[in-house]
Amino acid sequence: MGATYGVIMAGGSGTRFWPLSRAARPKQLLPLGGQDVSLLRATRERLSPLIPAERILVVTSEALAAQTRAELPELPPENVLAEPVGRNTAPCVGWAASVIARKDPTAVMAVLPADHHIANVRGFLSVLERAIAAAAEGDMVTVGVRPTRPETGYGYVELGEEIAPGVHRARRFVEKPDELRARQFLTAGRFLWNSGMFFFRADVLLAAVRQHLPGLGDALAGYDEAAKRGEERALVQSTYATLPDISLDHGIMEKAARIAVVPGDFGWSDVGSWTTAWELADRDGDDNALFGDVVAVDTRGSYVRAPAGKVVAVLGLEDVVVVDTEDALLVMPRSRAQDVRAVVNALKQENKTKHL
Amino acid sequence: MGATYGVIMAGGSGTRFWPLSRAARPKQLLPLGGQDVSLLRATRERLSPLIPAERILVVTSEALAAQTRAELPELPPENVLAEPVGRNTAPCVGWAASVIARKDPTAVMAVLPADHHIANVRGFLSVLERAIAAAAEGDMVTVGVRPTRPETGYGYVELGEEIAPGVHRARRFVEKPDELRARQFLTAGRFLWNSGMFFFRADVLLAAVRQHLPGLGDALAGYDEAAKRGEERALVQSTYATLPDISLDHGIMEKAARIAVVPGDFGWSDVGSWTTAWELADRDGDDNALFGDVVAVDTRGSYVRAPAGKVVAVLGLEDVVVVDTEDALLVMPRSRAQDVRAVVNALKQENKTKHL
Repeated sequence: MGATYGVIMAGGSGTRFWPLSRAARPKQLLPLGGQDVSLLRATRERLSPLIPAERILVVTSEALAAQTRAELPELPPENVLAEPVGRNTAPCVGWAASVIARKDPTAVMAVLPADHHIANVRGFLSVLERAIAAAAEGDMVTVGVRPTRPETGYGYVELGEEIAPGVHRARRFVEKPDELRARQFLTAGRFLWNSGMFFFRADVLLAAVRQHLPGLGDALAGYDEAAKRGEERALVQSTYATLPDISLDHGIMEKAARIAVVPGDFGWSDVGSWTTAWELADRDGDDNALFGDVVAVDTRGSYVRAPAGKVVAVLGLEDVVVVDTEDALLVMPRSRAQDVRAVVNALKQENKTKHL
Repeated sequence: MGATYGVIMAGGSGTRFWPLSRAARPKQLLPLGGQDVSLLRATRERLSPLIPAERILVVTSEALAAQTRAELPELPPENVLAEPVGRNTAPCVGWAASVIARKDPTAVMAVLPADHHIANVRGFLSVLERAIAAAAEGDMVTVGVRPTRPETGYGYVELGEEIAPGVHRARRFVEKPDELRARQFLTAGRFLWNSGMFFFRADVLLAAVRQHLPGLGDALAGYDEAAKRGEERALVQSTYATLPDISLDHGIMEKAARIAVVPGDFGWSDVGSWTTAWELADRDGDDNALFGDVVAVDTRGSYVRAPAGKVVAVLGLEDVVVVDTEDALLVMPRSRAQDVRAVVNALKQENKTKHL
């Protein structure tokens, strides 16, 4: 069995945590998991018991490469792959697979989003070990999370027969359902959230790329050739924008034959909104999550964040989010956290892009 | 008839407009009347048709004297009287009467708080003319505002017989009533809000001071003597703290014999809270009063203030107050505006006095 590599996908530039998250400081670089460390660092540290730093790769954007290297200084700098433009996950993972396969074609890749939160790290690691073992056998493996609500924002994967203890065949992937179907999935029991974590051997992934996304396969072969001449960087610069803008799920996983699912139940959260940040945070007796110099009077169920050097006072609030930063402030009911995009769009329309 | 002098009482250091108002920048220096100018400047400008700048005095604290002179640069600097310590209105008005009487003992003083808002300036001026005329006859005159709600936060004055067109004898002053009494006052019709505006001849006021507050009378006589030697400032400095801490209402008006009331109905407001500021402000189609760079999405009935260089975004709010400043932010329902003091007290208890 080849060595295991971690591949952390850290290219996100989400707007759902505006105004704390910005184009230049996206979600994965923020401490939103109820801890003091960024989500990216937490992701990397969770892998420590299984994968040493020199076998962890991070794929991010060029704009964020320096910050990402600074956030994970223990990684060799060349392990941070910088995409010249944002593409979807298929090119990102394909490129990482090429880089890894040059050293060890049978290496197992554990591909993880940089911006998730996991409450039960021990449970997570045992799922990882199972998934890595299945991947070493040649399967392409996804981790399915048992749904706790009829979520319409995620894709689902349907469990098939068990092929090893805790490892199932995947019957099919299902795109984001409407609410009725999501409720059916929740009661049916055999539909799991597609967590966005993937495990496969580098050579298996690259074969699947050649089969299902031959254009990407050709491009990656070109990168391998260029790498031999020390010219990979230049070729990536000039060609990355031409790679297909497609996700690993759509482009590969949904088409591949040997897909396995490892069900997991380890307090997973994709930290999707300020509401989630409130849920994950330490809260006081009034159910408030307060950060910085906050004075809360008659306030309950609220998330309040003060920037350095400032006092934020809240009086008589219930279930409200107040996120203050040096140059932008957001106030909304916690129930509107999904609509932060509307604010960001309004700012764009008014050309207030310096605050984005 | 002597000349008319305006005396603007501008010593307030209210906390109800925190965080915009601070000890170093209280309410009267803020543009809270729905206009671009401070309440103090608006008060001074309202008097312009009746009283020239050189006959307007402002009494304020030493700490605010420089800002007050800067706010009203058209006044002779010596017209801003600086109190070494905050006393109540009896010493403040008594001192101003002394200063004025040295020039013209029969001058009529129009004593006005610096922090009120008046919607109908024309109506206000005609009330003023009536009050000034009554004062010139030797009466001590107050302006009574017809109540529009059962307010328990104001003192009331009961109307007696009419002694001249639009001028009544005052039957009695009534302290802040409980709600039941306030409702009775509202229906009875002959109880008016004591507006805190007073009119009397300087010599009449000083005679009343000697009669009802003889200690203050002695001190003021001492100031007159010191003024002849150019030593008033030093004497004020060393003795002002010993003056009685009593209001003009309690100390003089409630005890004096010839009190008249001029009823007025000119859109008066004491600008008592952020709710009032919202009421007085220009509001958009969603009933929002927005100041500075504010992005409001799905928001109604709210007062939102952004400091320079900052964007404040509100999403899904109803009837909320958001006042942001460089080093302090307040968020509360509009209905809680009376409780800002609770926040200020909490800050004091936590020794966060630099934000007060």
